[in-house]
Amino acid sequence: MASKKTALKSAKKSPAKMPVKKNAFYAQSGGVTAVINVSACGVIETARKHSNKIGKVYAGNNGIIGALREELIDTSKESASAIAALRYTPAGAFGSCRYKLKSFEENRAAYERLIEVFKAHNIGYFFYNGGGDSADTCLKISQLSETMGYPIQAIHVPKTVDNDLPLTDNCPGFGSVAKYVAVSTKEASLDVASMCETSTKVFILEVMGRHAGWIAAAGALAQESDGDAPHIIIFPEIAFDKEKFLARVKEVVRKNGYCVIVASEGAQYADGTFLADAGTTDAFGHKQLGGVAPTLATMIKHELGYKYHWALADYLQRAARHIASKTDVEQAYAVGKKAVEYALQGKNAVMPAIIRKKGARYSWTIEEVPLSKVANVEKFMPRNFISPDGYQITKACRNYLQPLIQGEDYPPYKNGVPVHGKFKKVMAPKKLKTEFKI
Amino acid sequence: MASKKTALKSAKKSPAKMPVKKNAFYAQSGGVTAVINVSACGVIETARKHSNKIGKVYAGNNGIIGALREELIDTSKESASAIAALRYTPAGAFGSCRYKLKSFEENRAAYERLIEVFKAHNIGYFFYNGGGDSADTCLKISQLSETMGYPIQAIHVPKTVDNDLPLTDNCPGFGSVAKYVAVSTKEASLDVASMCETSTKVFILEVMGRHAGWIAAAGALAQESDGDAPHIIIFPEIAFDKEKFLARVKEVVRKNGYCVIVASEGAQYADGTFLADAGTTDAFGHKQLGGVAPTLATMIKHELGYKYHWALADYLQRAARHIASKTDVEQAYAVGKKAVEYALQGKNAVMPAIIRKKGARYSWTIEEVPLSKVANVEKFMPRNFISPDGYQITKACRNYLQPLIQGEDYPPYKNGVPVHGKFKKVMAPKKLKTEFKI
Repeated sequence: MASKKTALKSAKKSPAKMPVKKNAFYAQSGGVTAVINVSACGVIETARKHSNKIGKVYAGNNGIIGALREELIDTSKESASAIAALRYTPAGAFGSCRYKLKSFEENRAAYERLIEVFKAHNIGYFFYNGGGDSADTCLKISQLSETMGYPIQAIHVPKTVDNDLPLTDNCPGFGSVAKYVAVSTKEASLDVASMCETSTKVFILEVMGRHAGWIAAAGALAQESDGDAPHIIIFPEIAFDKEKFLARVKEVVRKNGYCVIVASEGAQYADGTFLADAGTTDAFGHKQLGGVAPTLATMIKHELGYKYHWALADYLQRAARHIASKTDVEQAYAVGKKAVEYALQGKNAVMPAIIRKKGARYSWTIEEVPLSKVANVEKFMPRNFISPDGYQITKACRNYLQPLIQGEDYPPYKNGVPVHGKFKKVMAPKKLKTEFKI
Repeated sequence: MASKKTALKSAKKSPAKMPVKKNAFYAQSGGVTAVINVSACGVIETARKHSNKIGKVYAGNNGIIGALREELIDTSKESASAIAALRYTPAGAFGSCRYKLKSFEENRAAYERLIEVFKAHNIGYFFYNGGGDSADTCLKISQLSETMGYPIQAIHVPKTVDNDLPLTDNCPGFGSVAKYVAVSTKEASLDVASMCETSTKVFILEVMGRHAGWIAAAGALAQESDGDAPHIIIFPEIAFDKEKFLARVKEVVRKNGYCVIVASEGAQYADGTFLADAGTTDAFGHKQLGGVAPTLATMIKHELGYKYHWALADYLQRAARHIASKTDVEQAYAVGKKAVEYALQGKNAVMPAIIRKKGARYSWTIEEVPLSKVANVEKFMPRNFISPDGYQITKACRNYLQPLIQGEDYPPYKNGVPVHGKFKKVMAPKKLKTEFKI
């Protein structure tokens, strides 16, 4: 209703001077998270509030390949309540993809195709919701005006469970995985503690993080006091030393009766070999990526003889909207909202970053950072976030992580399970006659 | 306070005739659950309300072996708020064990020891919180009066995530695992659906249930409509047919773009071989229990070539108090409470069972059943609860399962993680001079 009124008012004033409103394109990129749709919600709701300046928001069907294929989901066909439901719906409501645009030089055809699609649908704003690789793509799009003469404003909306984007204090999506890992570790540790007298003595939880140990580090948030489970955290940043590890497990079991380990999937030996590749051979004789947890479990069983259990959270951890961090949800919304506001302010090639304010009590704000400084830079855990022995986090790390899992933001439930949004996903009619091969 | 007053009042009336109040022994047995402590809470709070008739409640340290070792936790030393915290603390607060008492004939010494300990601590009530094996132990204890002349009332408090106890409509502990599996499957399915265009096409979640498919069946509660994920459920009750399974996976992926599978750890071939044993060989050349999920994943990869992901929930599923079923929590409390009431009514060798009332709207009550009919009987999924093709549940099964996951019962949170009870676990002073070897 607001949009109609505004349009009418403007029309009365100076119909001839009305600039043609540009539409927006929004896409989800790479691995999804519990809150990437919250950012989508922030983008779409904010754009709707400024419907006098921004036309439709088209969402790429399965991410950027939706643009290349001219598969544009017309989000204006979704009701306000459907868009609101994005807030509590995990994963990518419009579909995501793992597809990295190559350089202009290597794949000029793809960029020409994008411009063709954007032109056909009057798209002047590009919102790309992703991690490091996506920031690079978004940067390339932001340069289309210079390089190929097509005027577009590209804003990157940060998202990654890996928490490895630079300049932003943390990445939307990470806080919720961190909370899932902390909660699950705390609960499972009580289980092992109850049973260790006559049964399982070692429990291993394998978590995501191929390159950085942020997610594994979050396991430490299960601890209330020193010595609490998890007793050992395996970080990809610390070279795995089998003898030292086994000695520690033995020591912990002797002292506590049981040992809880949180291991990053990226755990590796000093020579860079992943523990997950250390290798089992399946029934067909093929080498199999065994996973870190079973590799560690086998080691413990054979060398120390302890009964073990292990869990592999896999997608469960990054889809767990039911236990999302309220802080994460709020930040995911804020970066989506801010991205649209930046676009309205005429900005290009920027990313809304989460900035931690100074002070004893955690608070944050959003500030713009140049995309050129975000793309292709990975933020690893600083060494001073990991204890000298390599198995725990430091106080500095705890101070950093703690606020990110703060607060609960429960979805509504029906029939005992969370309610998730239903989307019509009406495709905008195609205007181009050509197809594009992905 | 109430107990002191009552004692005083009685003392005034007829001090000489006052029967000596008997103490109670409570123990947790076998694999723990998200709500076994809720039953402990029901037992202890109810006993405290009847402190004129029941003395102290001693909890076995690590279950029944706590009785054999005369390691009795004096729960009267725990504050009312600590006992109340049992309601939202998963796993076994007093420790559990996997220890089955043999028959009188085989191990008379153990029974004599129990009587010795019970006598020394004036124990007249025995509450045993466990599954099928424990029901058998509880039955043997209930017969101590007849067989060995020691007067004791033994009441079994049902608990098992496996949901395989007879006579009770369902088992406390199961509803919460079922809810965890349904919620996790629903969330992870959205993740796979978002990514399948360019990435993972098959996702497998392996869940508990070595003998019965109840937990795997709960995965189906993620479905809102026919055809929703999970597309395939692997039950231990249905002989696994590799060709048929692969054909179904292929068909589902062709139709939906992705396929979600919930597999019971007890999945087996027609000859009874477990898929989990089908076997991988680790780096040391040892045969390894591979798990059902990786076995299925490898099969799919090699025969169909799809990219896969899999998760193994393991202890996470049965410790997940953060997403416990409210119905389950209420029933777990009710059976604990009722067990004490039965004891006060002079009953022996019974179990409070959950009875589903007739009517369209789910409601339940607790009724006593004879322990002799519970011990050593396993309840499997009836064949009419599994679809004719063996991959889904029927409407009858859905009607049965649905109410058991109904409602949420969130624990309190602090610092972003659930608060769990802290227990002093003060041991009652030992009165016996002998020790008992377990």
